[in-house]
This record gives sequence, C-alpha cells and structure tokens, in this order.
Amino acid sequence: MMMEASFDTEESFDDPSCLAPQPPGAVSPAKRQIKEVKETKTTINCVTFPLPGEGPEQQLLKPNEWSYCDYFWTDRKDPQGTTSVAGFEVLLQKQLKGKQMQKEMAEFVHERIKIEEEYAKNLSKLSLSTLAAQEEGTLGEAWTQLKKSLHDEAEVHLKFSNKLHSEVEKPLLTFRGDNFKKDLKKYDHHIADLRKQLASRYASVEKARKALADRQKDLEVKTQQLEIKLSNKTEEDIKKARRKSTQAGDDLMRCVDLYNQTQSKWFEEMVTTSMELEKLEVDRIEWIQQHLRQYTTLRHETDMFNQSTVEPVDQLLQTVDPGKDRELWVKENKTGEVRPVDMDI
Amino acid sequence: MMMEASFDTEESFDDPSCLAPQPPGAVSPAKRQIKEVKETKTTINCVTFPLPGEGPEQQLLKPNEWSYCDYFWTDRKDPQGTTSVAGFEVLLQKQLKGKQMQKEMAEFVHERIKIEEEYAKNLSKLSLSTLAAQEEGTLGEAWTQLKKSLHDEAEVHLKFSNKLHSEVEKPLLTFRGDNFKKDLKKYDHHIADLRKQLASRYASVEKARKALADRQKDLEVKTQQLEIKLSNKTEEDIKKARRKSTQAGDDLMRCVDLYNQTQSKWFEEMVTTSMELEKLEVDRIEWIQQHLRQYTTLRHETDMFNQSTVEPVDQLLQTVDPGKDRELWVKENKTGEVRPVDMDI
Repeated sequence: MMMEASFDTEESFDDPSCLAPQPPGAVSPAKRQIKEVKETKTTINCVTFPLPGEGPEQQLLKPNEWSYCDYFWTDRKDPQGTTSVAGFEVLLQKQLKGKQMQKEMAEFVHERIKIEEEYAKNLSKLSLSTLAAQEEGTLGEAWTQLKKSLHDEAEVHLKFSNKLHSEVEKPLLTFRGDNFKKDLKKYDHHIADLRKQLASRYASVEKARKALADRQKDLEVKTQQLEIKLSNKTEEDIKKARRKSTQAGDDLMRCVDLYNQTQSKWFEEMVTTSMELEKLEVDRIEWIQQHLRQYTTLRHETDMFNQSTVEPVDQLLQTVDPGKDRELWVKENKTGEVRPVDMDI
Repeated sequence: MMMEASFDTEESFDDPSCLAPQPPGAVSPAKRQIKEVKETKTTINCVTFPLPGEGPEQQLLKPNEWSYCDYFWTDRKDPQGTTSVAGFEVLLQKQLKGKQMQKEMAEFVHERIKIEEEYAKNLSKLSLSTLAAQEEGTLGEAWTQLKKSLHDEAEVHLKFSNKLHSEVEKPLLTFRGDNFKKDLKKYDHHIADLRKQLASRYASVEKARKALADRQKDLEVKTQQLEIKLSNKTEEDIKKARRKSTQAGDDLMRCVDLYNQTQSKWFEEMVTTSMELEKLEVDRIEWIQQHLRQYTTLRHETDMFNQSTVEPVDQLLQTVDPGKDRELWVKENKTGEVRPVDMDI
C-alpha cells in the first residue's frame, strides 16, 4: 500500500501537463524516503516531514522556476503565533490581491476617461464662442479656423476617451468575472478537506499506536506470570494475548497506510493546483501588460491627431495679407473717390 | 493765392513721407482744375467737387493700392438720410473695431488658458491616486511609471498655459494701450475742426457773393437813371457805386481764396492722416498674425512634449516579466520548500 501511494505521487510527477519531466535517472523523492529514511521524521499539523539534516536531500520539483509547487509546503504561523495559515492560503491571497489590483487599474482608467471628457467638453464649448467673430478678411478666416481647431482637438480627446473605455477599461474590468472567486473557493475547500481527512487519519494512527503498545505490555506481563508457575489456564491467556497483539499491529499498519494515502493525495493536489494558480498569475500579468500597452498606443495616437488639428490654422495664417484685407474692406466701405477741387469765383 | 493754395497741395503730394511719387509727367489734379474746369462744380456739405463727367479724369493718388487716402472723400448719408457721416469717421470706426477684435482674441486665449489649467490640475491629482499602488514586481514598476506620466502630462499642459499667457494673451492685450483711443480722438477733432472752418469760410463766400450782386444791381440802376436826366449829383452817385462794386468783387475774391486755402489744408490732412490709419491697420494685422502663429507653435510643442511623457512607460512595459515577478514574490512569501514524506510505523 505505501509503495503504491508513493507510486501514485510519482506518476502525477511524470504527467507533463502537470510537471516538467524529472532529470533522467532521478529517483522519486517519495521512493527514497521509504527505502532509506527511518525514525528521522516529524509531524507538524498532521503533515509528516523529514527532520532537518536527516534523510536524503530533496531536489526541487521544478528547479530554477520559482514554481509555486516548490515553496508552500509548510503552514505559516501568524505573527501572534496562535493560529497558522496553510501555505496554499498564501497562494490564494496572492490571487485575490491580483484581482483587486486589476479592478483598481480599471478604476484609474475610468477616472482618466472622465478627465478627457471634461477637457473635450470645455474645448468644444470654447470653439463655439463668438469672440472676435467679426474679424474680417484673411485674418478673419485664420481666426475662424483657429477656433474650429479647438473643436477638432475636442474630437480627438473624445475619441481617446471612447477607445480608453472600450479597449482598456472594459477589458481590465471584465477579465475574470465573479466565477474566478468561486473557482478559488473550490480549490480552497478541496485542499482544506484533504487536510481535515489527513488530520482524522493521523488521529487514528495515534490511537492504533497506543492500542498496540497496551497489547504488547499485556502479553509481556502474562509471559512473566508463566515463568513463575505453570498452569494450562495461563498457556491459554498467552496465546490469546499474542493474537490480540498481532491484531493491534495489523490495525496500526492499516492506519499508517491510510494516512500515507491521504497525504499523497493532498501532495498531488497541492502540486497540480498551485501550478494552476501559477498559470493564472502569468495570464493576469500578460493581460494587464497588453492593455497598458494599448493605453500608451492610444496616447501616442492622440498626440499625432492633435498635431493635425493645428495644420489648417498654420496654412491660413501663412496666407494672411494686410493689403488683401484692405482691398476687401475698402471695396465694401468706401464713401467716394472723387477728390475735392478749388472753388471758382 | 489760389495758385499758391493748389501749389501747397501739390507740394504735399510730392512729399514722399506722405505719398508715393506720382507717375512722371503727371500734372497735379489741383492745377488742372484751375486751368481747365469752369462752372462745372458742385459743393456738398461745404466741400467742392467736380460735377460727374465734367472736367478731366482724376488719377488715384496711389493706384492699385486700395489706399484709404483714395476712397473716403465723400460724406456718407446714414440709412435714415437725416445726418451724414464723414468718410474719415468710417476709417476711425474700422480702427476701433480692430482694437475690439484684438481684445476679444486675448479673451479667447485667456479662456483656453483656464481650460488647460483645469486639465492639468485634474491629471496631476489623478497621478497621485493610490489605485493599484500595491501591484508588485516589474508590472508594479510599469504601473507606477504610468501614473507618474500623468503628472508629466500635467506639467506639459501647465507649461503650455503659462506660455500662452506670456507669449500670446499678454501681447494681444497690451498692444496699443488706452493712448491709442486718445490718439484717434485727436485725429478726429483735428479733421472735424478743419471741416468746421471750411463751413464758416464757405458761409463768408456766399455772403460776399450776395453783397457783390447787390452792388452790381445798384450800379446798374444808377446808370439807367443817368440816361434819363443829367445831373452832377447822379454822376457822383455812379462813381461811388462803381467803387463799392469793385470793393465787393475784391471781398468775394479774398473769401474764395480763404475757402480754397482751408479746403487744401483739410485735403492734405485727410491724405496724411488716412495713410497713418492705413499703416496702423497693417501693423495690427501683422501683430495678430505673429502671435496667432506663436499659439500654433506652442500647440505643436505641447504635442511633442506629450509624446515624450509616454516613452518611459513604454520602456517599462516592455520589461514586464511574469517569471521575474513570480521569483520576487515567491522569495518574499514562501512558507517552506521541504516536501512531506510517508510516515513509518
């Protein structure tokens, strides 16, 4: 049974979907434990670890990858040292924080959108002002275009804010809906249940161990009694006690077996699940990176389009001509070009 | 006297500070009038003009220039036809309107400045927000830079608004202080006074013309009386009447002389002053053109500087690395890397 349990674990390691293949010739950690390690272990919160310095050195499951599956086996005592948090909980907290960060980034972008809308509103309002609307001629045309250019600028910033909404804010907001937190809860309960089962099976092991000890003591006593005075009655008792002691030994073996099966199951689930969380975090970072890049792309676009709003103004300013404007105005406003002459007597 | 008066006018034409030199061989309009034009003139509002179609054709003082000095000789009847506005007043109105336009453009720029300040205020406020401040690793750095870039953008827009104030709004506002309107009033009064003087001298001419007519009638009567019955007494009367008639003729000649002098003086002042106003308008248009160009230059600058605020964000976004971020986080948060092992009996 024990061997099988460790093989199970081994198999799950060799499953590439879940773990990188181990270096060739490497022996499953679990196997080694069984073969070599004896009485050099400790159990903390019902999980059994090799004692420091004892037993063979463990290789990381995924060396040089800082994989979640290699660093969260121990429970962490909280500052007060009263309760302790499972390593897996630390991974779940990281996921929840990541979700929160993504939500806050969307909020930030939303604020930026509001600022752009306000700016655009003010610009287009001003572009409609009638100030200096009566300026005439080529100068008047340049001025009119300058006022119009504010409307164009407003359009550019409005377009920016619309794209910010659809191409940055919304994706950041909708990436991983509420299902995400539900999924995390599932993981959480699944791993927590295995820990509870492990605890109860550890309790049975302790109970069985004590029962065996009692039986062995009883057998010892009866054997001593036999040496003192021979009687058939005692012979019977000893046979009976030896049977019970053997039975208690079998019980303990069975309990330890069940305990190790559960611990192997928990081990497998810890490895696969923590690696799923690891994948989720990579996705989150790449998703955010991609959409922050979209933000800077839109900013660049905005600056480019803004440039183009000024060009027609520049062109008309170049054609401003005081002589032409005088001609236009004089043609419209002249009172008379016949000059006075001297009076005769 | 008349010739002198017309010469005065002629000289003032040849004064280059006041007029472009006339085409070679051209004869002063004034001269021609004296030599050729007879009984072909009309006087409107005390100003004497040649009758349409009568007399030699007048050349423009500044051909092809649409110069103010060529097109505002007549007074303009207002729509109701009750009062009439001097051509010079039309030129003054144009100046006042130009001043108003320049003032309104400054106002417009001021409004733009306020919009930029508001935008900058909102951007830098948002850049200080703590949203997603706990994002970690390389992604956290990129995010922090993105938030900082809003502060840089705010700085760019603040710089824009400051330069708009000092390099566009202020020059437009301070160009031609209140002295300008005082100067216009001086011109106005100067020309108006000459018109008043012209009116009073025209009145004296009319009076003298009537006096001469009376005297001539009187002489005629007395001469007829002489033909009927001779008497020394009448001889005396006729001599006396002839003297008075001659005197009245001299009076009229003097009055016409003075009238023409005044009209020549007004003519000169009209030419020189209207050309000063023409120059002022050219200056105004070029001044405004120059400062609206400054506006577009500043707008271009702003777009350029804005571009540069995004670049550091782009760079940090390129270095975002989920693997690196996992390493950093795991190093700080790992609970334990020793894996559980099977329990022994």
